[in-house]
Amino acid sequence: MNGAETLVRTLLASGVDTCFANPGTSEMHFVAALDRVPGMRCVLCLFEGVATGAADGYGRMAGKPAITLLHGGPGLANGLANLHNARRASTPILNVVGDQATHHRPLDPPLTADTEGWARGLSAWTCVVQSVETIGDDAAAGVQAARVAHGQIGTLIAPADTCWNDGGREGKPRPVSPPGQVAPHVIRQVAQALRTGEPAVLILGGSPIRATMIADAQRIAAATGARLTAAQFNARVERGRGRHPVPRLPYGIDQAMAVLDGAKHVVLIGTMPPVAPFAYPNRPGLLAPKDAAVHVLARPEQDVADALARLADELTAPAVAVPAGKAPERPTDSAVTPEAITQALAALLPENAVVVDESVSFGRNFFNSLVVAAPHDWLQITGAAIGCGLPMATSAAIAAPGRRVVSLQADGSAMYTLQALWTQAREQLPITTVLLSNRKYEILLGELANVGANPGRVALDMMDLGNPEIGWTRLAQGMGVEAARATTAMEFADLFIQANKGSGPFLIELFI
Amino acid sequence: MNGAETLVRTLLASGVDTCFANPGTSEMHFVAALDRVPGMRCVLCLFEGVATGAADGYGRMAGKPAITLLHGGPGLANGLANLHNARRASTPILNVVGDQATHHRPLDPPLTADTEGWARGLSAWTCVVQSVETIGDDAAAGVQAARVAHGQIGTLIAPADTCWNDGGREGKPRPVSPPGQVAPHVIRQVAQALRTGEPAVLILGGSPIRATMIADAQRIAAATGARLTAAQFNARVERGRGRHPVPRLPYGIDQAMAVLDGAKHVVLIGTMPPVAPFAYPNRPGLLAPKDAAVHVLARPEQDVADALARLADELTAPAVAVPAGKAPERPTDSAVTPEAITQALAALLPENAVVVDESVSFGRNFFNSLVVAAPHDWLQITGAAIGCGLPMATSAAIAAPGRRVVSLQADGSAMYTLQALWTQAREQLPITTVLLSNRKYEILLGELANVGANPGRVALDMMDLGNPEIGWTRLAQGMGVEAARATTAMEFADLFIQANKGSGPFLIELFI
Repeated sequence: MNGAETLVRTLLASGVDTCFANPGTSEMHFVAALDRVPGMRCVLCLFEGVATGAADGYGRMAGKPAITLLHGGPGLANGLANLHNARRASTPILNVVGDQATHHRPLDPPLTADTEGWARGLSAWTCVVQSVETIGDDAAAGVQAARVAHGQIGTLIAPADTCWNDGGREGKPRPVSPPGQVAPHVIRQVAQALRTGEPAVLILGGSPIRATMIADAQRIAAATGARLTAAQFNARVERGRGRHPVPRLPYGIDQAMAVLDGAKHVVLIGTMPPVAPFAYPNRPGLLAPKDAAVHVLARPEQDVADALARLADELTAPAVAVPAGKAPERPTDSAVTPEAITQALAALLPENAVVVDESVSFGRNFFNSLVVAAPHDWLQITGAAIGCGLPMATSAAIAAPGRRVVSLQADGSAMYTLQALWTQAREQLPITTVLLSNRKYEILLGELANVGANPGRVALDMMDLGNPEIGWTRLAQGMGVEAARATTAMEFADLFIQANKGSGPFLIELFI
Repeated sequence: MNGAETLVRTLLASGVDTCFANPGTSEMHFVAALDRVPGMRCVLCLFEGVATGAADGYGRMAGKPAITLLHGGPGLANGLANLHNARRASTPILNVVGDQATHHRPLDPPLTADTEGWARGLSAWTCVVQSVETIGDDAAAGVQAARVAHGQIGTLIAPADTCWNDGGREGKPRPVSPPGQVAPHVIRQVAQALRTGEPAVLILGGSPIRATMIADAQRIAAATGARLTAAQFNARVERGRGRHPVPRLPYGIDQAMAVLDGAKHVVLIGTMPPVAPFAYPNRPGLLAPKDAAVHVLARPEQDVADALARLADELTAPAVAVPAGKAPERPTDSAVTPEAITQALAALLPENAVVVDESVSFGRNFFNSLVVAAPHDWLQITGAAIGCGLPMATSAAIAAPGRRVVSLQADGSAMYTLQALWTQAREQLPITTVLLSNRKYEILLGELANVGANPGRVALDMMDLGNPEIGWTRLAQGMGVEAARATTAMEFADLFIQANKGSGPFLIELFI
């Protein structure tokens, strides 16, 4: 059995059956092995950033790793930005990077690069396969590493000869390492702090944040008077009508500090202390009040759901009724405002949809407002490396068959990985992309003001995507995705209904 | 003077006046400084791989560095693949990467990543600015580092506060370090080997390969009977009618070994020993005959032109007449074959064009055949990381005003950095893109055979870009670039003439 086949068999035996691939020369044996060993769904991506972003969305929805198949150091490099987001989301991913054959690498042929060094910057586990004899065990170890706690990035670098040589032995699946439990005294200490009745804020994280976790957090909040918020950036939140709501800590420093204002206790539940995404001159970095005591109920890698349930019980907090949320009517105004589009989305979001949110500026209030929409999962950019939305939408549809994916997507960030649209068309995935076209880097205009810079013509030019105008309908069609443009809120609502009825992908270019 | 303004002033004083930018929050002060300090041309790119690929094309044509402006570790990561190509081309580039403020980085906000680690993998010089007081000197050192010999990659990582703080001092331009001269005894030794009359092959590299260098190499070849070839991958070659020709070592192992077959002496002139781009089972990696003596006339970082001229003189080699090349007539057949398209290009290439070649499989013979076209420069992928063509074409037009750029581009690799088309439209650059649409990864089908893999349906599916068909005309139009489709060789010739007459960019989608 050659190394490539050993690798595929080991992955399947370890429960990994989905591959997002952008293969090259050194991955040809792996690709050929897929025909001999059935069971691996291999999804072709036309750029590596699409493959890694897709693996992120897949891991968040499936709760287990997909592999990416990448070509050499530069192929891995093209995927690093979305792996960075995945790392911040605690998503399980195993990268399989084909590389120069062991005996060929010293000759330094053109593609040779620092594959291992680039991998180590964000991988919890990196392994360069030394021989065909170990590739099976190495792959099993890689899957295990990816499944530590909620998830990590593992990278298996496979020189071509370790794939084509014979003598592979299938690796035995290794036990999954679930998140660790929080110690009892930690639960008691946090309960004690909350029982003081002093102003407290609970900040909820977790990968994912399940509806049951929000319910337990609401029990705790109701019993103690603490304020509840989710973190700024969350890998996945189960929410919508019939489920307990949780708002999100705002992106803006002032708004976030207002939520935390006056707190004597800040309780971190599966998340790190809240910080400003970027520094600004003479502005604070840490957002919690200076005199607040910061308590860690659960670290991100621990069993957050269990800790919440135990804390709620410790406090003998009674169950809380779910508020009776009601979806609004669809908008009847024509103006394309954030409010009107939010209203349309809240009214018309399909039942059990997966929302992938990279709406950046225009959609800043989508999350909090869409809590009254039909039940859904919410996936969000987590590492501030833009370009994750379209790939995550692609794979969410693969990981969650039967559910409509709604991809709320800003234009500037869509441009980074627009090749994902082609994969959506190829796989005929049920994805509605709402392409928010404002023809500028709106967020940077805000950032210019935040840093106190006084922009002139050249600076403003660097924020302007309107010259020439990007034709998203044409771009989508060029990728094989059906598309149409909406210029009013009512047109948008009509197209949104139409798109969600279809079985394949559809892009709505919304001029905002 | 704040750090950003100090940085811009230092770069300008050091002769760097072009910036390929994909800025984010941490670069806002730099962008704002451009309005206070005139002289820096700032070209907006909608993806970092476009910015770095553009800096590569610029450096090859201008012979001096542009800067890239990138946002944090993930922004740099998105640009690494094309920086890899640039490193292989010995292109001078200085990356300016904005990053978290020094006091903010320890808080580990979302975008924080291993910027420095990722940079070191391919930068000859990496510097994390420690304070506004040194940013000027650091930038001057960075430009100097980029200009060592023919060119290197330098990376300046500028935490946001080192840009917004006051107290900057403009850095003094540092002397450029030109390529070193080859020692006289090396010239004599190589001359002695060539005088033996034993079979010899001269392999010519150099960044760039000037027409005068080819002329000197031809003198040496004629005087000694040695065979002359250029290396497989060359940053830039001056060529065309009225100039001495030089073929290129073929990509295929067998074809390359045939060129070297029987040689007792292999003379490396500004290039490394020829190797197979990838290893294949039971195939050699080194392509020169085992019993050949390998002589190094000049290492890549040395003054290759000077070494060639001195060797020709040492051999008292007389001048050689330029062969009377004649362009063919334009094709009159309709079939789209490599031969017909080559003929059209040879007949119709505009005088003094810059050809950027990422034509991969279909265009494998373009280089050798277009030697009879009007005089032109030829830029080529050098590091096997696909996706460099469209960005290099963009910047070649900026670095070489008044010249038409002809971008010979395979579809699979075009997809990696198609955002470059938008910058071409925005800057209204005189670029004709010949988009060779074969709807497959043709090169990988060959590689599957090379590695002895026996592809089945799944494997073949991974090479297939035809489902759905990519509509390049629509994609180009969506990016603001005029475009049309050619389905016959005659239609192609007509469109090629029309495109080259225009002042802006035009994309010809050629079904092959």
